[in-house]
Amino acid sequence: MKLASLKHGRDGKLVVVSKDLTRYCAADNIAPTMQAALDDWERVAPYLEALYRDVEHQAVPCQRFHEHDAASPLPRAYQWADGSAYINHVELVRKARGAEVPESFYHDPLMYQGGSDGFLAPRDPIPLKDTAWGCDMEGEIACIVDDVPMGVSSEEAAGHIKLLMLVNDVSLRGLIPDELAKGFGFFQSKPASAFSPVAVTPDELGEAWSNSLIHLPLMVDYNGEPFGRANAAQEATFTLADLVAHATKTRNLCAGTIIGSGTVSNKGEDGGAGKPVSEGGAGYSCIAEIRMIETIADGAPKTRFMQPGDTVSIEMRDAAGHTVFGKIEQEVVAA
Amino acid sequence: MKLASLKHGRDGKLVVVSKDLTRYCAADNIAPTMQAALDDWERVAPYLEALYRDVEHQAVPCQRFHEHDAASPLPRAYQWADGSAYINHVELVRKARGAEVPESFYHDPLMYQGGSDGFLAPRDPIPLKDTAWGCDMEGEIACIVDDVPMGVSSEEAAGHIKLLMLVNDVSLRGLIPDELAKGFGFFQSKPASAFSPVAVTPDELGEAWSNSLIHLPLMVDYNGEPFGRANAAQEATFTLADLVAHATKTRNLCAGTIIGSGTVSNKGEDGGAGKPVSEGGAGYSCIAEIRMIETIADGAPKTRFMQPGDTVSIEMRDAAGHTVFGKIEQEVVAA
Repeated sequence: MKLASLKHGRDGKLVVVSKDLTRYCAADNIAPTMQAALDDWERVAPYLEALYRDVEHQAVPCQRFHEHDAASPLPRAYQWADGSAYINHVELVRKARGAEVPESFYHDPLMYQGGSDGFLAPRDPIPLKDTAWGCDMEGEIACIVDDVPMGVSSEEAAGHIKLLMLVNDVSLRGLIPDELAKGFGFFQSKPASAFSPVAVTPDELGEAWSNSLIHLPLMVDYNGEPFGRANAAQEATFTLADLVAHATKTRNLCAGTIIGSGTVSNKGEDGGAGKPVSEGGAGYSCIAEIRMIETIADGAPKTRFMQPGDTVSIEMRDAAGHTVFGKIEQEVVAA
Repeated sequence: MKLASLKHGRDGKLVVVSKDLTRYCAADNIAPTMQAALDDWERVAPYLEALYRDVEHQAVPCQRFHEHDAASPLPRAYQWADGSAYINHVELVRKARGAEVPESFYHDPLMYQGGSDGFLAPRDPIPLKDTAWGCDMEGEIACIVDDVPMGVSSEEAAGHIKLLMLVNDVSLRGLIPDELAKGFGFFQSKPASAFSPVAVTPDELGEAWSNSLIHLPLMVDYNGEPFGRANAAQEATFTLADLVAHATKTRNLCAGTIIGSGTVSNKGEDGGAGKPVSEGGAGYSCIAEIRMIETIADGAPKTRFMQPGDTVSIEMRDAAGHTVFGKIEQEVVAA
């Protein structure tokens, strides 16, 4: 099934959305908010599934669904933790500065605790106070889990993945080096992220959901041009289930916890750096990557980070070409 | 006024507690939960204040308040970010390993994004799977804010501090070095924290609340013995308002965001390392500090980290000797 949170109060109003994202039916009589549904998922999900079937069969009155009326599926969440499943991204960052990737990175995932107290809506502008902060998009996939106990295995974690989304994990590259040098991870360098208009249960993906990964290209367009088409199941060192399991090592995860994949990134056909989409490659899901490739090739980056007026869109289409999650579409604006 | 969340469902039931913490009156007819009250603070707070006056004057029926019935004031929160106001703590850590404190640390606060999806109740045991993880307590003060817009000054931030609490920011010292070496900050090394049974408005502290700091000693007892009596206003490089302002540089903070001070830590009378309480000093608010002092003195630490059976309590008493926030009291148990 497909769920969304229409903009309403702080936590949105839960609605069930048709598979083609054209219609919705209010579900707030079943659970007022997405978080409320997740808090009681085992009991509530069957009612939502039944309503979804009715929406699909046009057996209930529906209203027109407009993606721009949607908040992020969880407009605010109790936890947002972002991994780094695609080591190619990490390898590129390191290579650009001549550093090796530690061997441990291939079996011990990188993960940071992100701010979750307020997410941008999928069509909200990205407020930017200072272009020197180096605003970048990061296209990712993410899952929402139910309650997960401490210390689960990846196999156990897989069963806790209830919903899937796309993310634009906005990053302020100019603030990252100083902040990471302090040793306490990201804080100011990771402002509010945005999630796709719709969250879907894994079964919606059919065969494209396998081994806790989405086997589809993540379509990232930058200023209206194709920028990234990296497949979210390719060169993934870790699955979403691996990342969920990692997050549980020392603590439980509350229902509604969002775990992200990190920037989706594919190698080139020759195993080296990927080519731009315009040259037949899979392109990039963030600007930092193309800058790294430019740095490796020419000694310096030439693509600049996002400035007011620049736009990014992120979506995923199934084998038939239909949008799965709707589209994140954001413009950077001066704050 | 003094507020608590009695254990009830995921988010507790809001109650107003008498100044002496002996009685409570349910406030869920005003706001069902602490988060709901914070979401609508300007409208709701006057009703809670009126109820608090009635509780104090015994003008409403009250029930006996038991601290062990209280969840953390916010049993889960949308944000928990912890600063490092007491640079003495940072200086000690660095000195123990022969490193300098970067000059920037004196004007640019350290802050990490903590997990907020589930806090331990103030009397809950601390579950520990492996003693090699090096379980430590960290006694701190913390504030809860209402909605704070991006980019506020410290002066503006001060007005957003609505409630104050104590924290035991549980840390797994054995996991920290490897995790910080990865560069993404704490995740597995910071399991669930616990907050004091009661959250209080700053006016409850009278003159002890000044310049966004609490001018009282933080009483940390370890295994029943006084371990720390460091004054939370002494040698604070940053105030709680400074830390709130820091957190807003690139994003808004949602009502209910908790900002912590970092481990409270005082220098010794001679400006050097503080002495243990048993030797007339202010002692320590975490085990890591005494281990650092032992390392500086003798080349190696001799106090071990917490193991199952070890207990910690954290509270603060006003000038008249009355508890302000109630007591965090926890025992480490094998998980």
